[in-house]
Amino acid sequence: MLIIREAFRGTHRFDGFQRRLGVGRNVLSDRLARLTEEGIFERSRYQRAPDRYQYRLTPKGMDLYPVLLTLMRWGDRYKVDEPPVRLYHKDCGELASPELHCSHCGGLVDFYSLSAEYAPDAW
Amino acid sequence: MLIIREAFRGTHRFDGFQRRLGVGRNVLSDRLARLTEEGIFERSRYQRAPDRYQYRLTPKGMDLYPVLLTLMRWGDRYKVDEPPVRLYHKDCGELASPELHCSHCGGLVDFYSLSAEYAPDAW
Repeated sequence: MLIIREAFRGTHRFDGFQRRLGVGRNVLSDRLARLTEEGIFERSRYQRAPDRYQYRLTPKGMDLYPVLLTLMRWGDRYKVDEPPVRLYHKDCGELASPELHCSHCGGLVDFYSLSAEYAPDAW
Repeated sequence: MLIIREAFRGTHRFDGFQRRLGVGRNVLSDRLARLTEEGIFERSRYQRAPDRYQYRLTPKGMDLYPVLLTLMRWGDRYKVDEPPVRLYHKDCGELASPELHCSHCGGLVDFYSLSAEYAPDAW
């Protein structure tokens, strides 16, 4: 998730991820390979001899943004005094604190306003 | 995250988590202890001799629901043919597909409609 967060922040190259995350080359290489295999990143070479690669989020990866956003909001609330990132909503110019709304009626959606129906084979 | 998901689904007892998740007692015990220490679960004894415990989500834990919901939506889109859980929005009765909206203007919020401002010490 930290790698994906970095990609949303604009990091794309292997060395960039390593510098930003301070993680070992092997671990990072494994994670990036797995995320590429999962179709979350697309890998491309940007330099030859030595070969160097960059990793860009695919549409499937970009679609993880709401997960990141809700996780960030939770972290801002419980983990830090001052949020490290402020997000502004370009459309209205205000500090954004995204909330989940129903795509049908537009009303606020939370645990209490949803009822769950499980598929027969849902575990 | 799977443990937290189970708790939202109504599982509270140690044995219940174990049966549902099929995970070893030691691993489960470690995870629950960590989540309790983090203030996500509150542990209470529901039986003596032998002592048995249940784990309930605290308000801090309940606030992880939007993260779970956005992750579920992503999973429904990319990981399965048929979503294992259908969520209905009680207020309007429709199948809920929650979206992120700005708490100020009510407009849809996504990666492209946000601009980020980093605190000086944000890494």
